[in-house]
Amino acid sequence: MSSAEIPLATNAATPLALSTWNARAGATLERVLPAEDDPPSALSRAMRYAVLGGGKRLRPVLVYTAGTACGADPQRLDSAAAAVEIIHAYSLVHDDLPAMDDDALRRGRPTCHVAFGEAMAILAGDALQALAFEVLAGDALLAAEPALHVAMLRTLAAACGAHGMAGGQAFDLAAVGQRLTPAELERMHVYKTGALIRASVRLGALAAGCSDAQRLAALERYGHCIGLAFQIRDDILDVEGDSATIGKTAGKDVAADKPTYPAILGMEGTKAHLADLTAQAIALITPLGAPFTPLADLARFVAERTS
Amino acid sequence: MSSAEIPLATNAATPLALSTWNARAGATLERVLPAEDDPPSALSRAMRYAVLGGGKRLRPVLVYTAGTACGADPQRLDSAAAAVEIIHAYSLVHDDLPAMDDDALRRGRPTCHVAFGEAMAILAGDALQALAFEVLAGDALLAAEPALHVAMLRTLAAACGAHGMAGGQAFDLAAVGQRLTPAELERMHVYKTGALIRASVRLGALAAGCSDAQRLAALERYGHCIGLAFQIRDDILDVEGDSATIGKTAGKDVAADKPTYPAILGMEGTKAHLADLTAQAIALITPLGAPFTPLADLARFVAERTS
Repeated sequence: MSSAEIPLATNAATPLALSTWNARAGATLERVLPAEDDPPSALSRAMRYAVLGGGKRLRPVLVYTAGTACGADPQRLDSAAAAVEIIHAYSLVHDDLPAMDDDALRRGRPTCHVAFGEAMAILAGDALQALAFEVLAGDALLAAEPALHVAMLRTLAAACGAHGMAGGQAFDLAAVGQRLTPAELERMHVYKTGALIRASVRLGALAAGCSDAQRLAALERYGHCIGLAFQIRDDILDVEGDSATIGKTAGKDVAADKPTYPAILGMEGTKAHLADLTAQAIALITPLGAPFTPLADLARFVAERTS
Repeated sequence: MSSAEIPLATNAATPLALSTWNARAGATLERVLPAEDDPPSALSRAMRYAVLGGGKRLRPVLVYTAGTACGADPQRLDSAAAAVEIIHAYSLVHDDLPAMDDDALRRGRPTCHVAFGEAMAILAGDALQALAFEVLAGDALLAAEPALHVAMLRTLAAACGAHGMAGGQAFDLAAVGQRLTPAELERMHVYKTGALIRASVRLGALAAGCSDAQRLAALERYGHCIGLAFQIRDDILDVEGDSATIGKTAGKDVAADKPTYPAILGMEGTKAHLADLTAQAIALITPLGAPFTPLADLARFVAERTS
């Protein structure tokens, strides 16, 4: 399928699945986060602020969508879904710090360090990373299959570290003002955004007890494609979107002299690459059959989103 | 036993156990950390710098000492020992940041952010926290008993989070310039330093397969006592030590208007409290028999250390 033929029409099912799973993740997050007045209360408030500020919750939606497609009861997916969103939220808090991207606006609200101070934002991020592992390790349903439980914890840890999200941030830091090759840009995003998105799909499949190596590989490859697609769409929105709609400062990447897909591939080349990745993702899902259709819908959503 | 009677004479066995286990932990850390040139190499170098800068490695020493006392082969303890040291190292990197304690000297060397820049220090800390979970979750020996493996991961995560180390840091932040009660000061340290030290003892016992609830409780209570004792000794050294010996800036806590034991209990009261906690720790260990003697020796070491 050429990129021009990809069906990018809005699929009505996608927003519904998104809002259902988003709301379910929100309920779990509300339950596992410390209460506002739980001492140290400033930390509890900063953690809640960082996690409960809305957002698409794409990563938990992927856990639920992949997991239920593989046959899991949603209950088995709650802690993994919460864990990936908590990790994502912590990464945003640290990315926004003055020493990092120095951003003041996130999801249409002041960033965590603007609201709570820099020191508390650092600690809130640190405590959130620990909480993600605590929530996943504390899941009573998964504990009945402890080998699978350990595999899930290993998957989450690998996605967060030097060969995952944190490593991607380090590539990003080193890339400011540099002219990257397309391969270097891709590596940066595969680490920075892709690792946790891929892990979300894998965690859903693992929680469902999926042990078919070929199916797991296809799902991870799908996660790889939509992880990159997600980032490319971000770069496009940074150029074409406005701050009010995207909920963060538009034009920020360009102003910060960060390498972006439009800068390296041009806007037309960027959009074609996005369409190709989306087509690849859908092509990986189609052979898995009808229960997996919502993953294809999500791939379309990622490519089309406006915020 | 009154505090005046505690035998605080140096025990020759302690430095030996310390140096043996310290070296063993060092070998594991060398193996699990990314190589210097492992991309992103700036991150790899910062992570290695933060972890391999020497230090007492008290937490891995506690894992090995408690674990071998409970009958574990040291091999079963390697990943937990490395994990607690990695967590400790990450916490020091973040504590030293300009927005936190703003310290330039650690273990006699420039702090991580002075050497690598603030952004890379934040990321190195983040990547180290993830690495600790990855190392523990990836242990092949423990994987043979996955329920125990999950329990260990849960123990580590709980010690790091809002009700553990990160929470203690938040209490610390809120305490600057405040007049704390002795109970508030103790709560801060039980979270900040105590949680990871207690977890180190528990991880050793768990890895050994110890499931005797009474013994586990005694060992954790021992960890609680020496965790507080460790912090009290730190406060004493901050007043009485010199920067060259303690490897960090002496007088820092007082200058930063942080609540300390000497400020709240007076120096005499502080030393008496230290001696009482040490006596409690030893009294908890003595009934466990001869194999546990090295833990009593460690309690004495913690109370006497000069760096």
